[in-house]
Amino acid sequence: MAKHIVTFTGYRTLHVPTGTLLSEAAQMADIEIQQPCGGQGRCGRCVVQVTNGTVRRRSTLRLTPEDVGAGYALACQTIVEHDVTIAIPPQEKIERRLATDRIASDVTAPLGYTPLGQPLHRLPLDLPPPSMSDQTDDWSRLQTALRQQTGVDSFRIDLPLLRRAGRIMREGEWQVTALVETDTWDRLDGPARVVALWPGHVPDDEPLWTVAIDIGTTTVTLWLVDLLTGRVRAQAAEYNAQIARGEDVISRIIYATKNSGSTELRNLVLETINTLLERACKIVQIAPEEVFKATVSGNSTMMHLLLDIPAESIRLSPFITAVNHVPTLLAEDVGVAIYPHATVDCLPGVASYVGADITAGVLSSGLDDAEPVTLFLDVGTNGEIVLGNREWLATVACSAGPAFEGAGVLHGMRATQGAIEETWINGESFDTSFRVIGGTKPRGICGSGLISLVAEMFLTGVIDKSGNIDLDLPTARVRYGTHGPEYVVAWGDETHDGRDIVISRTDIDNLLRAKAAIYAGFTVLADSVGVPLETVEQVYIGGSFGKYINVEKAVQIGLLPDMPWDRFHFLGNTSVRGAYLALLSREDRARIADIASRMTYIELSADNTFFDAFTSALFLPHTDLARFPTVQAAIQR
Amino acid sequence: MAKHIVTFTGYRTLHVPTGTLLSEAAQMADIEIQQPCGGQGRCGRCVVQVTNGTVRRRSTLRLTPEDVGAGYALACQTIVEHDVTIAIPPQEKIERRLATDRIASDVTAPLGYTPLGQPLHRLPLDLPPPSMSDQTDDWSRLQTALRQQTGVDSFRIDLPLLRRAGRIMREGEWQVTALVETDTWDRLDGPARVVALWPGHVPDDEPLWTVAIDIGTTTVTLWLVDLLTGRVRAQAAEYNAQIARGEDVISRIIYATKNSGSTELRNLVLETINTLLERACKIVQIAPEEVFKATVSGNSTMMHLLLDIPAESIRLSPFITAVNHVPTLLAEDVGVAIYPHATVDCLPGVASYVGADITAGVLSSGLDDAEPVTLFLDVGTNGEIVLGNREWLATVACSAGPAFEGAGVLHGMRATQGAIEETWINGESFDTSFRVIGGTKPRGICGSGLISLVAEMFLTGVIDKSGNIDLDLPTARVRYGTHGPEYVVAWGDETHDGRDIVISRTDIDNLLRAKAAIYAGFTVLADSVGVPLETVEQVYIGGSFGKYINVEKAVQIGLLPDMPWDRFHFLGNTSVRGAYLALLSREDRARIADIASRMTYIELSADNTFFDAFTSALFLPHTDLARFPTVQAAIQR
Repeated sequence: MAKHIVTFTGYRTLHVPTGTLLSEAAQMADIEIQQPCGGQGRCGRCVVQVTNGTVRRRSTLRLTPEDVGAGYALACQTIVEHDVTIAIPPQEKIERRLATDRIASDVTAPLGYTPLGQPLHRLPLDLPPPSMSDQTDDWSRLQTALRQQTGVDSFRIDLPLLRRAGRIMREGEWQVTALVETDTWDRLDGPARVVALWPGHVPDDEPLWTVAIDIGTTTVTLWLVDLLTGRVRAQAAEYNAQIARGEDVISRIIYATKNSGSTELRNLVLETINTLLERACKIVQIAPEEVFKATVSGNSTMMHLLLDIPAESIRLSPFITAVNHVPTLLAEDVGVAIYPHATVDCLPGVASYVGADITAGVLSSGLDDAEPVTLFLDVGTNGEIVLGNREWLATVACSAGPAFEGAGVLHGMRATQGAIEETWINGESFDTSFRVIGGTKPRGICGSGLISLVAEMFLTGVIDKSGNIDLDLPTARVRYGTHGPEYVVAWGDETHDGRDIVISRTDIDNLLRAKAAIYAGFTVLADSVGVPLETVEQVYIGGSFGKYINVEKAVQIGLLPDMPWDRFHFLGNTSVRGAYLALLSREDRARIADIASRMTYIELSADNTFFDAFTSALFLPHTDLARFPTVQAAIQR
Repeated sequence: MAKHIVTFTGYRTLHVPTGTLLSEAAQMADIEIQQPCGGQGRCGRCVVQVTNGTVRRRSTLRLTPEDVGAGYALACQTIVEHDVTIAIPPQEKIERRLATDRIASDVTAPLGYTPLGQPLHRLPLDLPPPSMSDQTDDWSRLQTALRQQTGVDSFRIDLPLLRRAGRIMREGEWQVTALVETDTWDRLDGPARVVALWPGHVPDDEPLWTVAIDIGTTTVTLWLVDLLTGRVRAQAAEYNAQIARGEDVISRIIYATKNSGSTELRNLVLETINTLLERACKIVQIAPEEVFKATVSGNSTMMHLLLDIPAESIRLSPFITAVNHVPTLLAEDVGVAIYPHATVDCLPGVASYVGADITAGVLSSGLDDAEPVTLFLDVGTNGEIVLGNREWLATVACSAGPAFEGAGVLHGMRATQGAIEETWINGESFDTSFRVIGGTKPRGICGSGLISLVAEMFLTGVIDKSGNIDLDLPTARVRYGTHGPEYVVAWGDETHDGRDIVISRTDIDNLLRAKAAIYAGFTVLADSVGVPLETVEQVYIGGSFGKYINVEKAVQIGLLPDMPWDRFHFLGNTSVRGAYLALLSREDRARIADIASRMTYIELSADNTFFDAFTSALFLPHTDLARFPTVQAAIQR
């Protein structure tokens, strides 16, 4: 096959065969090109400039004819067929929110916590030394002592520890400390396992380290926990390094099906986890190998990608996961850099789009034990909703799209420094004021900013209930721009890069579709279990999105159901908290398995009910205004 | 550190630092030098000749002053301090008995065998395909079908198979065959494990391959078994490649404590096992990866070395094994080249010198279920003896030394081609006639040959009851040689290399000590349980030694107790047979664990009882002639 010379100006020159994608060539040259859409040619973030030679473009989506004329091309959609020279435009790195790792003292164990409630125990043992009259083998000697101390009947040990055990016993002169796991996740009845062994007696007050991990599509969060006290002793969070290979789960699944894509994605998330682990361990001054158990939460796709289990069927009808409840694994098999023979318990999920993050959320919200009918909501790219109480649990997942995460919106961005997070519109002048994260000049608008912006526009009449911008308003802020009707949120002289920050009609449509999907989820779920939304007594909102949302505005655009604000509770990262609870107690581990098994998953694409509800919700706040009495009142004001 | 040039004539020249042993230098040069004694300078088999330069000899044991003058040196005891040239004497390779692998049709399953009695089951499954109304995850779908078919409640799966499972189900269009292990050795109550999965339905009559392995100190034996019929379909045997690093377990343990010695020994035995596996698989035309379970028998040292578990404490007082009953392991962890996630069950041992080979022997002899008091004997370098019946079991191990294996005897050799295996002495002329293995000219005398030789010498008066050679006999065959008094078994003109084959006074002493150790074992064992030896109704003899022994002669020298010959039964390799039985049935697996746990081990070195019995047995046939009435009669004849 013919080979061609590809020169990346300022980087490397290399030879590639005919048909190679520019994105592949860049990867070979170790040049990091962002592909948030997973190389599907949707996002336009991988744009490069062909400065010499010709290429074949499979797609030019998001490029103007002028762009193409100037040599711009999407790296993931452009094929090398001749020698070419490529310039990589200066590209801003993925914004990095300053996630501050910290010594955590604010998360303490639930009241009445005792380390006896979990299956990991560190036991000091005094073994009778062997003699001519007691020639018991080392392993039986250890087992006998363990049996006496625990009452457990039979024990297991892995080969690597069995190899070292005899030396450790002799080094400690028959005084040892054993770390025993009396049961695991999926093996409640099996023999207990000797996880680790130290010579001598480890002091009673030395912490017993474990870790709770939440793998978000966007952010990975890690809590380092001392099981003896149940306290979280360090926390760390970081963007999931997989982001550069796709921003949402669908893009990642597609990326994973490519050549070695799944291995790459696995390595990327392990890199993030292990970096966080090192950072957290540094805070408490231990080595990662001193951590003896991990629990992992995350949505179903994240769980599959972590374990390199094919995720393809999640994306394709009828949307099947390979596994909802992963058996207990060893850290070395998973690749998490704690003690290699520590166990890793992945929390159980329910369906392709209702993963362990949601069962963990239900566990940590206590919904499964609640008396009144309660709603749990986690909004990200997908909105997962759970309705129920101690008697029953039902759930739906609706694909909201990434609008609330700032994607698919012209000036959308993630909630990082420079993002407009709240706006107010003057009802007479139609001028705006806004609050920016970090107090800098604005660079774009994040999810909560978009919600408040749309709500303000609707209430001040800048848009009507269908989202049409009133171009006749007496203000220069409404205008017809390159993308159609738009409203100027910030003028160029106020912004970071001197360009106007606007919201277009198209942006508003995307936001309406996103909020309609979520609201339709509420209604279908409520209808299918026969519980009117108004009777819901508590609404728990989990996920990072929930932390910044303004309930009033969210109700005004019809994203959240209209009910008294005091029914809403923001719980933050309920996923990592669920993983943390599962670490602390055997009971909570049984409980989350129970939650997963008794939660009824309602598939929204099974019939037209969802589509009808979605269509009705495509208005501000809703076709049926009676459902939003407080909004009705505000409009009439 | 200074470096010196070592030239191995005809091989390689290399540079080594001061202080390097010649045996180490040879190893660096990839020259195979036999070290049957494990590099302790005992056996003299590693002799080399220094043809140029000088060396420092730590020991010259077994070398005459003339040898040393001619430059001969023990490679394992000789240190390089200057440039030297070394000649490797033409050394016969370790004799290789022509172990004929064969299609085995003579070993068939015990009467009434049914594959239902063992825990490995191959199950054809028809899974309902997933749909929008049945979105169960792949793993749960598989589990539900398995649950319905087996009644077992919970299942496990390892990560590598979980990764492939979804593809296999889709490839088989939801028709699959699962291989399930319902329980293992040490985990009778745990969840069943899905070991393997195939698309479609595997035909019912396709064999289900498993393997029984016996690791002898000398020979490794392997039986390939079809679990469906219980038949042994192929057998293969080969010398344990560890032999070149020590002939007995003590030498090997010492070798293992040297730098990387334990890794080397592990690799050597794995090499042997995996070669045998390939040979056996070739006979039935399958790949080794199609074998789905292994059981392993062998003495405690062999088991430790296979798993690279430190064996040092076996050798040192108070003689402790690291482990008698190894937990169930995976083939990939052990290194046996069958299906990587197949389980390997190592049979349980009792003590440092009563290993799984003996419990397997007891199982396959049926001693543990016998009505009358029965003796089981396995003689090799060590003699292990079990006495008991269905009510009780007691055992001793006595270190006989390697004399019966032909080592420590001037012209001793293993029972291979060229070995004298039986002799007869004319009571008047004192001339001999003999039978040689393979019918060739004799090269030496093997264990059974030595037993019959000593018996004949005793009965014809060549030696007295203390083993003294009568140098006054009217035959040139008795003489005073370089090693003291000796008897010529074969004259040089009859032998393979033209040299006389003799047995010396020292050889006889070694043999007397060996037989006295075994017989003392019998008596101490019988005394300690209060059962007179005469009341023993059956004697089972296992091990390869037993295959060739002549009971009459063995009784005549006082190795075996004097009782009617029909009470003796030769069982051949009872160790591999025990491993085979453990493969076939869950009951036999439980039974062997029971045998191991209820067998009382009597430590012979705990007091003087054994020493006294040993001293009394150092005569032919015994100090107390009344114990050997048939021998007494023969002498008087």
